[in-house]
Order: sequence, then structure tokens, then C-alpha cells
Amino acid sequence: MRVRNRADARERLENSPVVFLQPKYNKGKWKEIFGNNNPIHLEIGSGKGKFIHTLAERYPDINFIAMEAQPTVLTFLLDKVEETHRQNLKLISGNAEDLLEYFADGEVTQLYLNFSDPWPKTRHEKRRLTFHTFLAKYETVLNNNKKIVQKTDNQGLFEYSLMSYAKYGFTFNELSLDLTNSIYEEDNVHTEYEDKFIKKGNRIYMVEAIKEK
Amino acid sequence: MRVRNRADARERLENSPVVFLQPKYNKGKWKEIFGNNNPIHLEIGSGKGKFIHTLAERYPDINFIAMEAQPTVLTFLLDKVEETHRQNLKLISGNAEDLLEYFADGEVTQLYLNFSDPWPKTRHEKRRLTFHTFLAKYETVLNNNKKIVQKTDNQGLFEYSLMSYAKYGFTFNELSLDLTNSIYEEDNVHTEYEDKFIKKGNRIYMVEAIKEK
Repeated sequence: MRVRNRADARERLENSPVVFLQPKYNKGKWKEIFGNNNPIHLEIGSGKGKFIHTLAERYPDINFIAMEAQPTVLTFLLDKVEETHRQNLKLISGNAEDLLEYFADGEVTQLYLNFSDPWPKTRHEKRRLTFHTFLAKYETVLNNNKKIVQKTDNQGLFEYSLMSYAKYGFTFNELSLDLTNSIYEEDNVHTEYEDKFIKKGNRIYMVEAIKEK
Repeated sequence: MRVRNRADARERLENSPVVFLQPKYNKGKWKEIFGNNNPIHLEIGSGKGKFIHTLAERYPDINFIAMEAQPTVLTFLLDKVEETHRQNLKLISGNAEDLLEYFADGEVTQLYLNFSDPWPKTRHEKRRLTFHTFLAKYETVLNNNKKIVQKTDNQGLFEYSLMSYAKYGFTFNELSLDLTNSIYEEDNVHTEYEDKFIKKGNRIYMVEAIKEK
């Protein structure tokens, strides 16, 4: 995601109690941070955060963590949280590659991958967030209900992801090749990208992949 | 598939040496019938047979069997075979439900499901050719390379099939959400329905599902 640089971004993030710029120090302690035993849902690549903020408002008994690699992008979600004072939403600056440094085994209940970078070139396959090395990390941090909910408008990434999930032993609880016109749309919370892509007439793909122990 | 009744259909089928109206008598004997040890590929629901006839011409070292529930429909493929005298193509009149009566365990190397009836109503789920009871039959008649190649323009059937395959332990070797514009199109042999649906602007979905022992 490209955004204009915000001059005070770093300072704001460093001074906010809801932002964790070094999440590795919180590994295994997320329940303490939230102050309750509610399940934790993690969005990897949360962008400006409309999706996860809406979920946090809708489901107060779930704890949400928005993870975003670009600190400046996180400040857009911080704007929202400072306005609404949601207690069940924390922000972390981090990379999916380092997921095992941020979360203890089974510390997360559900994962969201929304409109991830498709990395269409074969030589970049390893960078796709559904490459098997990432699935292995997800499997580790997820607990008994190993659930990943993915949305994308990118056909190639979706084809690849379905193949990758199945090969890794995931099955599909829900699957839509046209989410906007599906039975799932009623409960579907849009991301910023999703709104944009729907306006362009793109199809939105969705899969809920699960792996039972 | 709806076709006008052909008055001499039954007689032609009964008198043809390439048509097997009671395939249960040939169970375990298909290699003998073809007179060689080449692998056997089976299309379930072959319709007028353009697809499988083209494959038979293209791959002389593979034996093809076209299976079709409606005898009258079989006569269209019989027309072609009587013209070209393909030796590596046989026609059978039968139902997918009775597959285990027609083929011995591991007698088939590859299966094709082309534009199968989607049976969209939930109460008809059991009739979809990718319902788990059918997958169990396919697994039995297929040999080591348990490979099913499916094409459809029906979004609901395709979503359902992907979920059903994964749940049954199949993985995906190839997968396209827009076959006509994919890298697989070069080798793709069209069915009659496929041509019709492409003209209408429908997307064609394709998956090659495999289950390794």
C-alpha cells in the first residue's frame, strides 16, 4: 500500500499505548495485554484498517490484532482507534515472516489475509502469503480451530492459494468465486481495497480454509 | 443433454462392436477389449463426444472410454467413430452410480468430468458428480495416479467440487478460474458445451484433482 509520508507517524506510534512496534516482546502475553481470555483474531497486512476496526466494533468479545508492515500505514488505523477508543483492538508493526517471534504456539484463533500482494512472478512465489512456509507459521500460531479467511480480487493468487492450502492439508469450510453476489456478502465486512475493486467491477474471491488437528 | 429421438438409435447401438450397452459384463476386461496395455481414460457424461473423440485422435497410445447415460446421445459419437474408425475409443451406456459394476479396482488411469449437471438445489447435493460417494467410487476404479480433470462453467458446482475434493483428501495439480484465457488453453480440447458457453461469454473453470496413495 502506498501512502504519503506522515511527518509525525513514528512519534505517534511510539507514544500510543495500543501500538506495539516491537511485538516480539509480547509473545505469549497477548491475553494479558487485552486483559481477558477472549479469542484473538489477527489480520496480516491490515492496511488502513477499516476491515478490522469494523470487526472490532461488531464483535466486542473477540480481541483483534492488526498487523501491518509499514508503520506509516498503521497511523490511519490509529486515527480511528483514538476516536472510538476500542479496547479490543491492538496494532502491531511487523512482518508475516517473523510471525513466530510475535506469537506463542496456539495463541491466535483466526487469521485474515485480505488482498495480499499477489507476487505474480514465479520467482517470487516464496513471498506470497499462502506459500507453504507461511502456512507452516500460521499452523503453529493458530490453536485448535486452525482457520484462515482469505479475500482477494487477484485470480492468480486465489488459484495458487487454493492449491497451496489443499497441498498443505487444509480443507475449505466456505468458498466463493464471487463474494459480492454470494450468500456470504450479508456478513461480509469490506476492506478499503475491496470497495475500490468492486467499483472497478472486479470479482472478489473468498475462502475459509481450516485444518483440523 | 436434450436431443431429438433418433428412431434407429437402439438398433445401431446394439449392432455396433464399439458400443457396450451392458458394460458390467466387461468389468476387469477392458484391456482385452482394447487389445493392449495402454492406460484407460474415462469420460463420465460424454454427451455428443467431440471432446473424447478429439483426445482419441490426438493420443493414439491412450485408450478412451466415453460413458453416457442416454443411449440416443451416444449415437452422435457413434457417427464420428464409424467415420474415423478410431480403435482406441469405446462407448458405454451407463450411470456414474454404477461405476463399480463396470470397472475393476484400478482399471482406469484418468477421469474426465465435463460440464456435469450442477444440481444446484441443496437437496440434490447427492446427485452432483463430485459428491463424496462418487469420489469414493472414482478412487476405487482409478489406479495409482488418481487423477480427475473437471471442467464446468457453473460457479456453484465448481465451488462445491473444490470443497468436496479437498475434504476427501484430493489436492490440485492444476486449477484455473478462467481456462479460456489461461496457460492451459493451448492444450485444452473443447466440448460442445464449452464452445457454446464461451460464445455466451461464460467463464470456464478447470481443476485437475489428484489423490496420491
